[in-house]
Amino acid sequence: MPRISTKGKNMPESPIRKLVPYAESAKKKGIKVFHLNIGQPDIKTPTVALNAIKNNTIKVLAYSRSEGSEEYREKIAKYYAKNNIDVTANDIIVTTGGSEALLFAMGSIADPGDEIIIPEPFYANYNGFSIASGVKIVPVVSKIEDNFALPPISEFEKLITSKTKAILICNPGNPTGYLYSKEEIEKLATIVKKHDLFIIADEVYREFVYDNVQHQSILHNFGLENNAIIIDSVSKRYSMCGARIGCLVSKNKEVISTALKFAQARLSPPTFAQIASEAALATPQSYFEEVIVEYKKRRDVLIEELRKIKGIKVASPKGAFYCVVELPVDNADAFAQWLLEEFNLNNETVMVAPAAGFYSTQGFGTKQIRIAYVLKKEDLITAVSIIKAGLEQYNKN
Amino acid sequence: MPRISTKGKNMPESPIRKLVPYAESAKKKGIKVFHLNIGQPDIKTPTVALNAIKNNTIKVLAYSRSEGSEEYREKIAKYYAKNNIDVTANDIIVTTGGSEALLFAMGSIADPGDEIIIPEPFYANYNGFSIASGVKIVPVVSKIEDNFALPPISEFEKLITSKTKAILICNPGNPTGYLYSKEEIEKLATIVKKHDLFIIADEVYREFVYDNVQHQSILHNFGLENNAIIIDSVSKRYSMCGARIGCLVSKNKEVISTALKFAQARLSPPTFAQIASEAALATPQSYFEEVIVEYKKRRDVLIEELRKIKGIKVASPKGAFYCVVELPVDNADAFAQWLLEEFNLNNETVMVAPAAGFYSTQGFGTKQIRIAYVLKKEDLITAVSIIKAGLEQYNKN
Ligand SMILES: Cc1ncc(COP(=O)(O)O)c(C=O)c1O
Ligand SMILES: Cc1ncc(COP(=O)(O)O)c(C=O)c1O
Repeated sequence: MPRISTKGKNMPESPIRKLVPYAESAKKKGIKVFHLNIGQPDIKTPTVALNAIKNNTIKVLAYSRSEGSEEYREKIAKYYAKNNIDVTANDIIVTTGGSEALLFAMGSIADPGDEIIIPEPFYANYNGFSIASGVKIVPVVSKIEDNFALPPISEFEKLITSKTKAILICNPGNPTGYLYSKEEIEKLATIVKKHDLFIIADEVYREFVYDNVQHQSILHNFGLENNAIIIDSVSKRYSMCGARIGCLVSKNKEVISTALKFAQARLSPPTFAQIASEAALATPQSYFEEVIVEYKKRRDVLIEELRKIKGIKVASPKGAFYCVVELPVDNADAFAQWLLEEFNLNNETVMVAPAAGFYSTQGFGTKQIRIAYVLKKEDLITAVSIIKAGLEQYNKN
Repeated sequence: MPRISTKGKNMPESPIRKLVPYAESAKKKGIKVFHLNIGQPDIKTPTVALNAIKNNTIKVLAYSRSEGSEEYREKIAKYYAKNNIDVTANDIIVTTGGSEALLFAMGSIADPGDEIIIPEPFYANYNGFSIASGVKIVPVVSKIEDNFALPPISEFEKLITSKTKAILICNPGNPTGYLYSKEEIEKLATIVKKHDLFIIADEVYREFVYDNVQHQSILHNFGLENNAIIIDSVSKRYSMCGARIGCLVSKNKEVISTALKFAQARLSPPTFAQIASEAALATPQSYFEEVIVEYKKRRDVLIEELRKIKGIKVASPKGAFYCVVELPVDNADAFAQWLLEEFNLNNETVMVAPAAGFYSTQGFGTKQIRIAYVLKKEDLITAVSIIKAGLEQYNKN
C-alpha cells in the first residue's frame, strides 16, 4: 500500500468542519441551527454581477489569460485608484480567489524551511497554505485584552531570523475584526524595510470598516512599493464567495513576474466568474452603504448582547464581520460540540467556530470562539441568548 | 529589496508564452497567424452547459462544498460507470481544473525531495506543479521512432529509489498523442504494486481516441484500487477550458481524505462552472461523435500533409489532439520564432510550440515541435504548407 506524504498528514483540518457532522445530526433531530461559524454572508450578490452572467454570449468557453483579462485588470486598477492605491493593470494578477493569491505569494517569496511571521490568531487557512508550500509560520501573539492590536514591534524583532521572508497581516482581521491604525502600519513598514522583508497584507475585508475609520492599505503612502503584496478577493466585497476570484497586487516587478509563472502553470482563472467580477465593479455605492449599515447594526447588537453574559470577554471588532469571544469554559471546542450535540433552547441551537484553530501556538485560544455576524439582527439576538443559556447549563454540570 | 524564492526562480515559463510577443508583432504587421501552439479547441461548448448558466437562479453566490456539490459528484460517478470505471461520489474531489487536481495529488503523496517518474515528453506544466510542490521529476525517455510508446519497464525499474512516490502517465498523451495499450497498463500495474508506488493517470483526453481503439483507464480491472489516482477535467471534453473544473479520483481513502484537506484550505471550486459542468454531463452522444469525427479528419489530413515534407519525422497520434514532429533544423525554438518574426507565405504564418519545454532532460526535443490540431481542416492544410515553405527557405539561408 503506497503512503501519503508527511505534508499531507500535517495539513490541518478546517477548525469548522470537525463540527459539521454534529450540526447535521442536530438538524436531523429537528433542531434549528444558527450558523455563526462561517464567513459566508447572507447578503445578496449585486444584480449587475448576476445579470452579466445571464447575458453572456459565450459560444466557446475558452481559457482566459493566465493573469486575468486585460479589461478586467484595467478596471481593478481603477477600483484601487478610488481607494488611494496607485497601481496599474500590470501590477495585478487575477487569481482563483484570495486563496490562490495567498498560495502564489508564499510560493513566490519563500522556499521550504523559510519563515513568515504572522500575528495570531489568524485566518486558519494560512496554516494550510504554508504547509502546502513548506513554509513555517512563526506566530507573534496578539491579545484579546488589547482587542488584538498589533503586538509591540520588539516582539517581531525577536522573531526575525535569516529564514524570515515576510510578515503577513490580515487587515481588517479575520478572526479578530481588528483594524490596523496608520501608526501600526508605519511601524510595520519600518521593520520590513530595515530587514528587507516582504509584507503581505490580506485586505479582502477592506470595505468592511465601521465607525468612520479609514482603512489603511499597505500600498498607501508607506514607501512599501518594493515590499508590499496585497491579497484581495471579490468573495466578501460583493457577497460572491462562490465566484472564486481574487487577485495578487504588487509594485515589485519580480514578484509579479514570478507569481505569473505560478499562474501560467494552472492556465487561467475561471472565465464566468471573471465576467461577474468585472461587472460587479459597477455595483452602485448605495449597495455598499446599505451593507455597511447592516453589518454595523449586527455588530453593535451582537457585542451588546454578548457583554451581558457574565464571565465572558469580547474583543471589540472595528472591521470585517467576525469577533473573538473568550468563554468561561475550559475547552471551547468541547462546548461548541456540546451546543450541537446535547443542547437546545426551544429547539434551536448555535454553531460557532472554536478559536484554537486560528492560533498556531499549541494551547492558545482554547477558551475562545469566533463568531461570524453574517445573520440578521433578530437571529443574532436569539443566537446569543442560546449561548447564554447554554453556558449556564454547561457550567452547572 | 526583499528577494523572491529559489522555487519562484526555478518555475518554468510556459514553452509557448515565450513566443507570444513575436506572434503579436506579426499580427501588428498584418500577418495572419495560425495557432497550432495551444490546446484551446475551437469546438463549440455544448448548449446544455451554456444554457444552465444563463438560466441559473442564484441570488447569493455562495461557497460550494470543498469537495464539490453532492449532486455533481453523484453524476460524475455515473459518467465514470458508463466508462467502466467503478467509483462513488465519495471517491471524487471536484477541483479547479485538472491543474488543481495535479497539485493536490502531488501534495498528498510527495514531500519536498521526493521523486515522481514521468515518461517524457510530457505536459509541460507537470514541471511547474512539481517545482511548486518541491517534488523532483525523474524522466524516462519515450521515443518519436516508437510513436512515444511506453518505454521498457526495465527503464522504470532502473530509476526507482527510496524517494520514488509515483509514476505519472498522461493517457492519451499531451504532447505525444500516444494511447497506452492494455498490456502497457498491465506492466505499469505490476511495477507500481511491486514497489508500493502510486500511479497518477492524467486522463483528461479520455474521449479523444480514434481508430476504434478502447481507452484503458487505470481504474479499469488492473487491481490498482490502492494505487491509482485519476486526474480529470471538463476542459477538453466539453470544450469548456474556461470553466476551470476538473476532479481527482481515487479509491484509496487516505488519498481522498488528504486531498480533501488541500481542497478545504482553498474553500471551494467555482460555483458557476460547477453548474455548467454538471449540465454538460447531459451532452448528447451525437455531440461527441461529431467532435471525434472532426478531430479524426483533422488528424488524418495533418499527418498526411506533414509526411509530404522531406526530412521530417511524425509520430502517429492515436488520441488527444496533438502530435510531435521532428524537423530538419538544429533548433526548433529558433525556427518557431523565425516563422513568426521573419517569415510569411501570402501574409500568413504559423505559431507552433517548440517541444523542448515538454522534456525535462536538458537538450532533448530541441528539433521537435508540438502541433495542436485544433483548427479546421482547410486551415491545417494551409498551416502545413507554410511550415513546408518555411523550412525550405530557413534551410537555404
Ligand atoms: C482573511 C481571509 N483571507 C482570504 C480568504 C479567502 O477567500 P477567497 O478565497 O474566497 O477569496 C478568506 C475567506 O474567508 C479570509 O477570511
Ligand atoms: C495533459 C493535460 N493535463 C491537464 C491539463 C490541465 O487542464 P485544465 O486545468 O484546464 O483541466 C491539460 C491542459 O491542457 C493537459 O493537456
